[in-house]
Amino acid sequence: MNQKVILSVLGTLLRFLGMMMIVPLLVAFYYHESPLPFLIGIGLTEITGIYLWSSYKSDDDWKLREAFAIVAFSWLAAMFFGAIPFIVEGISPLNAFFETMSGFTTTGSSILDNIESHSKSILFWRSMIIWVGGMGIIVLFVAILPKLAIAGRQLVRAEAPGPTEDKIKPRIRDTAKILWMVYVVLSALEVAALHLAGMSTYDAVTHMFASMGTGGFSPYGRGIEAFNSPLIEAILILFMFIAGANFALLYRTLYVNHKIIFKDEEFKFYTAVVVVATAVLILALRRDIGADPFTCLRYALFQVVSLLTTTGFANTDFNLWPDSSRIVLLLVMFIGGCAGSTAGGPKAIRILLLLKYARWELFRSVHPKAVKPIKFNGKTVPENTMQEIISFVVIYFLVFIASTFCISIMGVDILTSITASITTLGNIGPGFNLVGPMASFNGMPALAKVIMIANMWIGRLEVFTVIVMFTPEFWKK
Amino acid sequence: MNQKVILSVLGTLLRFLGMMMIVPLLVAFYYHESPLPFLIGIGLTEITGIYLWSSYKSDDDWKLREAFAIVAFSWLAAMFFGAIPFIVEGISPLNAFFETMSGFTTTGSSILDNIESHSKSILFWRSMIIWVGGMGIIVLFVAILPKLAIAGRQLVRAEAPGPTEDKIKPRIRDTAKILWMVYVVLSALEVAALHLAGMSTYDAVTHMFASMGTGGFSPYGRGIEAFNSPLIEAILILFMFIAGANFALLYRTLYVNHKIIFKDEEFKFYTAVVVVATAVLILALRRDIGADPFTCLRYALFQVVSLLTTTGFANTDFNLWPDSSRIVLLLVMFIGGCAGSTAGGPKAIRILLLLKYARWELFRSVHPKAVKPIKFNGKTVPENTMQEIISFVVIYFLVFIASTFCISIMGVDILTSITASITTLGNIGPGFNLVGPMASFNGMPALAKVIMIANMWIGRLEVFTVIVMFTPEFWKK
Ligand SMILES: [K+]
Ligand SMILES: [K+]
Repeated sequence: MNQKVILSVLGTLLRFLGMMMIVPLLVAFYYHESPLPFLIGIGLTEITGIYLWSSYKSDDDWKLREAFAIVAFSWLAAMFFGAIPFIVEGISPLNAFFETMSGFTTTGSSILDNIESHSKSILFWRSMIIWVGGMGIIVLFVAILPKLAIAGRQLVRAEAPGPTEDKIKPRIRDTAKILWMVYVVLSALEVAALHLAGMSTYDAVTHMFASMGTGGFSPYGRGIEAFNSPLIEAILILFMFIAGANFALLYRTLYVNHKIIFKDEEFKFYTAVVVVATAVLILALRRDIGADPFTCLRYALFQVVSLLTTTGFANTDFNLWPDSSRIVLLLVMFIGGCAGSTAGGPKAIRILLLLKYARWELFRSVHPKAVKPIKFNGKTVPENTMQEIISFVVIYFLVFIASTFCISIMGVDILTSITASITTLGNIGPGFNLVGPMASFNGMPALAKVIMIANMWIGRLEVFTVIVMFTPEFWKK
Repeated sequence: MNQKVILSVLGTLLRFLGMMMIVPLLVAFYYHESPLPFLIGIGLTEITGIYLWSSYKSDDDWKLREAFAIVAFSWLAAMFFGAIPFIVEGISPLNAFFETMSGFTTTGSSILDNIESHSKSILFWRSMIIWVGGMGIIVLFVAILPKLAIAGRQLVRAEAPGPTEDKIKPRIRDTAKILWMVYVVLSALEVAALHLAGMSTYDAVTHMFASMGTGGFSPYGRGIEAFNSPLIEAILILFMFIAGANFALLYRTLYVNHKIIFKDEEFKFYTAVVVVATAVLILALRRDIGADPFTCLRYALFQVVSLLTTTGFANTDFNLWPDSSRIVLLLVMFIGGCAGSTAGGPKAIRILLLLKYARWELFRSVHPKAVKPIKFNGKTVPENTMQEIISFVVIYFLVFIASTFCISIMGVDILTSITASITTLGNIGPGFNLVGPMASFNGMPALAKVIMIANMWIGRLEVFTVIVMFTPEFWKK
């Protein structure tokens, strides 16, 4: 393991993170709030970043293990240093780490009991972390993960000029820049739209951070319900839906071929899930809560898009719905957005390919000798891609089960444990019962908080990245 | 599709089933109860059986599709005709079908509200169905399924002289006879042991039926709790554990090599699950219900063995335990007994191989070019066996999720829906909440009962056997 290159990259990352904190510092000055949390944050982060960067300056290429370690430790380092402003503000370190990891992983599960009691600049930083985390995710997905040969090399389908097999660095700049551009342009459009719909600049920016990053933090305890505006909700639905789509696909649709998005099987599947789940949920809500059709549509579409894209916003307390409506939301939590987006979850493409695999095996059990490959977007899915997807899903579920078991055995009810596990592992945000959308994760046992931090970290980094580091062979020479 | 051979086999099966009903008829005479349910049952079953057998007499070999159809329709036919005595006794047809399918699939989920109100002969037949179903399972597993190339050809490892690839019939007699012998000898031993421990002959026989078939019906509403005898529970634990082990392995251990059982990886895994789950549950129960250590051991070991082997007996109402104890039971429900036993569930060997697969993929993500096959009992697991296991688990979970969704959306709470689905799909018996061990499935919506009947059928026949019949290619020429 080349530790020098790892520490060098972490140094660069911290320098970038420290500079990011200048934004909430300016917000603090604007609202005449204490700049101390950010001054201390910037100081400690920059000092550490510059120290690492100058001591271990390295232009070495990343090999497989270095790439795993860089990805995993990047999010850990971001958690430790990003939490400094919260800790200075008086939040306990464990809760601060939870909230920061929740942000950088674009989870949006909140541990703050009384959100409105915090300063505007702290809440701004809390939301901004999501947006920064979303940028990191784009790099991770588009540039790094495909090279790690995990979870399906071809999943993102970015089709940027690729580097040679063992060198990862050159590609990062090529592809990530294009996708960051898409991300930034969409972000600007969303701020404008939300502002025009009546939100203050502060609210528009923070909610844009949370929806473009599919993060779901809101500076208000009641979340989107606080605005009670169907127009704002419609804008958020649109941008959540876009943020959950493959950014490379969006780019190619805008600049190469407008029709390409309608031919993409993952996008079609993703859209179909939204339509079907919303339709079912409307019917269930009509029966279960007896609201008028427009309200049912409003709740159903917003919550389905919010949970499928793993944003986690709520325009009503869906935790109060009967189980017969909540089951629809529970199921979409196990799907997630598209690969190459900021969304979490197992991702639509993996679920789609797994369904194709099951269908294929049924065919094969009747025609054992037939040769008929599994296809995606007209191309044969390579066998090892399928293997990677299957092992991803297997390990994802093992982590989910282990987490549910551990949280439950601490005395938390099963449904809370199930949803707390999937919502953190899938980087969604809210769950049911004790961790509902209007509740806080602060009531959970301390050890459960640690497990959920691990879930967010594992889930965001596509499970393998973190889990391999716990195998002995990763550390062997 | 050769319909003649299918109808011919079903005819033979019904003739056998009709003769089986002579046993509860004798029980009815012994207890001076109405013989009518069984006389009508025998009459209708034998007439249909003889009609089919004589009209379609066929010695043709079974090809792939015929084998699928024979297996699936055998259990359906057994359900329809086995239910006649219950219907004659006044139970509604849907409930009678549920109870009979529950028996023949060795599930043991009961829909009878007041069990003790039924006649001794009816309750005898109810328990006996399980034992007959267990015999059918042995044939299915040892002789038929391995030839269908589903779910892992080598899973059972019966190693009986095999026939040629396309001919299934000859093997049935060879291997099944040996394993039936094991089954019958163990059954006799269990009756003797239970009788010596103080059970009446009637109770000993019916509970032997239920434990050797891993079925779990009891003629008493409170189940094993009714006896309140640690000795009886210890005997049941032993025989449930044996009934959940691979019968071919038991045979070879007894007659070939006494040490072989301790070298078998599936048996070791199965035993390890019992030990670990029991230990964890003892600790959880100590904290949750505060009982003395012996009571905790008694409850924990009995319930872990009962639910892991998918028997479903209860020596206490575990549904009253807090979730932090129930979670242990919920997890073992997703494992099941060993292949080649009468137990249901995904089976220990599949879970073990899936864990090995996950571990193997983690290794591969660090060493992408390494060649290191997955091994089981020292032999390399062929790639297509692994594929079959994976697709089994994928389809098993899809059915589980679909069933949970459908039952839940009807207005049943999520935990009841989850456990009602896994307990019927895994042929376990009891679940949590509305379908707890001391409750009845009668309170479930009618459509949910149909879904659960389908679950039992699908789960017992290793999912593929039933599911392929719903694909268009199965019916194509
Ligand atoms: K989220
Ligand atoms: K059972």
